[in-house]
Amino acid sequence: MSIDLLEIKGVKCSSIASGIKKNNALDLSLISLIEGTNTAAVFTQNIFCAAPVIVAKNHLNSNIQALLINSGNANAGTGKKGLEDAYITCEILAHKLGIKPEQILPFSTGVIGQLLPLEPFKKSTNKLIENLSVKGMSMLSKAILTTDLVEKSCSISFDINENSVTLTAVAKGSGMIRPDMATMLSFIVSDIGASKKELQDCLNIAVDQSFNRITVDGDTSTNDACTLSATNQSGVRLDECEDEFQNALNEITKALAQMIVKDGEGATKFVEIKVGGLTSTEDCLEVAYTVAHSPLVKTALFASDANWGRILAAVGRSKVTGISIKNIDIYLNDLQIITSGEPSLDYTESQGSAEMRKKEIIIRIDLGEANTTESVWTTDLSYDYVKINAEYRT
Amino acid sequence: MSIDLLEIKGVKCSSIASGIKKNNALDLSLISLIEGTNTAAVFTQNIFCAAPVIVAKNHLNSNIQALLINSGNANAGTGKKGLEDAYITCEILAHKLGIKPEQILPFSTGVIGQLLPLEPFKKSTNKLIENLSVKGMSMLSKAILTTDLVEKSCSISFDINENSVTLTAVAKGSGMIRPDMATMLSFIVSDIGASKKELQDCLNIAVDQSFNRITVDGDTSTNDACTLSATNQSGVRLDECEDEFQNALNEITKALAQMIVKDGEGATKFVEIKVGGLTSTEDCLEVAYTVAHSPLVKTALFASDANWGRILAAVGRSKVTGISIKNIDIYLNDLQIITSGEPSLDYTESQGSAEMRKKEIIIRIDLGEANTTESVWTTDLSYDYVKINAEYRT
Repeated sequence: MSIDLLEIKGVKCSSIASGIKKNNALDLSLISLIEGTNTAAVFTQNIFCAAPVIVAKNHLNSNIQALLINSGNANAGTGKKGLEDAYITCEILAHKLGIKPEQILPFSTGVIGQLLPLEPFKKSTNKLIENLSVKGMSMLSKAILTTDLVEKSCSISFDINENSVTLTAVAKGSGMIRPDMATMLSFIVSDIGASKKELQDCLNIAVDQSFNRITVDGDTSTNDACTLSATNQSGVRLDECEDEFQNALNEITKALAQMIVKDGEGATKFVEIKVGGLTSTEDCLEVAYTVAHSPLVKTALFASDANWGRILAAVGRSKVTGISIKNIDIYLNDLQIITSGEPSLDYTESQGSAEMRKKEIIIRIDLGEANTTESVWTTDLSYDYVKINAEYRT
Repeated sequence: MSIDLLEIKGVKCSSIASGIKKNNALDLSLISLIEGTNTAAVFTQNIFCAAPVIVAKNHLNSNIQALLINSGNANAGTGKKGLEDAYITCEILAHKLGIKPEQILPFSTGVIGQLLPLEPFKKSTNKLIENLSVKGMSMLSKAILTTDLVEKSCSISFDINENSVTLTAVAKGSGMIRPDMATMLSFIVSDIGASKKELQDCLNIAVDQSFNRITVDGDTSTNDACTLSATNQSGVRLDECEDEFQNALNEITKALAQMIVKDGEGATKFVEIKVGGLTSTEDCLEVAYTVAHSPLVKTALFASDANWGRILAAVGRSKVTGISIKNIDIYLNDLQIITSGEPSLDYTESQGSAEMRKKEIIIRIDLGEANTTESVWTTDLSYDYVKINAEYRT
């Protein structure tokens, strides 16, 4: 996996400061896709989904040629006017590109509940088109940020027969992170040839083991979206390399998902909650998310306090039936703290503290004999989380 | 309802500093119940329930004559040794009182995961018995506190025919508050005459509309318990005043539940989330708790920021099916912010800020035509919540 972003044949991108954000920051981006590209997408399950999500869902069945992305304003909670505005942004761009409005997918991220200003779109679209470049994806990863502190992007490439297939992806997200079918925003492009249906299947699998496994604060956003576009410029069709492509896509989405957690608002720790021994994925995730969302576990992680009673209490209140205390083992990294439901005999507080002081921590919870194991990734709860979210609009 | 605690005939109480807490603070209490008293109780549903909860459940079918309560140590997550210790504390007291160990209900609250010291029980039981007084309930409300800042107690009395019936109750709780069948600890005593079955029915009803409707941080404790004892000293039997007694009990438990929320760790606001218009209590509560547990809503409340998009997003991600956006109205106190799923036309930011600056806020969410309405009570999420819980054991 590469940190320098690899160019994707058939994809151009540009980003400019259009005036939606203050301080002349980058806030408007365009991804242009060569004709013949197919695009799949997943969107937030929040019923109050934002206007651009509604428009993008409506447009997805068309032959998509451009993705239009703004940061600084989510165009969510904006009612009918917001929906009109999202359509208008597509119309403005479509007119300049000489395509139909429904060939454009719009995306917005930023403050909820304020009308999207249209003037920046009207006055900046020409410049956006002029600036299109095959090297533009790395600037995109900067332009889509809001409360994020770091850019999140990666590329991966694999060889198949005489050819190579490349994927490049960017993502943003830091707060309001508990994706449900997608993350805040992520755009993945590849030069592989694949139908929309094939891409959708691959994307669903990848998202389910990556963006749908992370949480910062348990709050599912109104604007989550993730796209996968394939330009068919590599000379390789998906059916020649299904496994390789799926693995590459899984790897790239998991990497981005973990980057989002590490950049979680106020995060000082990166924590994997790994739950095994139950019969269903659903039950494992219920226990894992109960621990991951516990404010008491999260503040103990922030304080590097080996207050494992809080982990125990969170496991104990999770809505899973049929767990027997006698089958429960809990570990901090490799240190066992609970053995068969009892405090481990040779556990010491100083050992626990040493594990909790680490920046990356795995809390492993084994609940029985069954084979299913699932992980979610999360962060601690710090003063800065409160500060960032108390002062977000001031 | 009275703040000065009313004495209950047949109930004596004492509290001492036994050395479980540091700094010579009150930490061990005894409630002595006259023969003929019946006691009902509800306990935490956390599967990792603490040792004293297991013992109290086992003893509840006996003729209960004493409640033994310590603060400073929860005796939770302490395995078989903790269970033995809880039984031993009952044996020590039973021996001195000349009753059977199973006539005692033990309760503990404090740090999880540390063994309960038995020495304080051995050396202090005589003094505890000597100090028993009919005026002791108000000292109990101080002795059971842990991170609580204020004492929580109240009395209520009503006349029936020529007699009067009195209820007095104390409670503690401030963090790890999302009771599930009970609260952290609450002890209610009355001079009414009632069977254990009658008391249990009354208590279940009362708890369900009080302690089971509050949340500070969504974390259900391992030690939650609430008891209701009736000494039969008033000359009035429950069947003479079922409605009056139930109303009094409802009022007293709701008052204590709200006191717990107002004393929530780091709380600067008292917030009611009132959800109506759905067909089931369960669905109303799912929406209400989703909003009540949202860290983004809670930090906006702390900042007095009328960032209502966060309320919208939380409603939108709640796990209730069949909500139509067009039916959604949302209010901050009496100020309507969402009308039929759209931002209210005459809403202004300054109006919203004025409501959010208040110390007591009702967020009212109407979701349709059905008649069920439920409320939960919660707090904001402040720097001090993080501070209190990051430094709890240091």
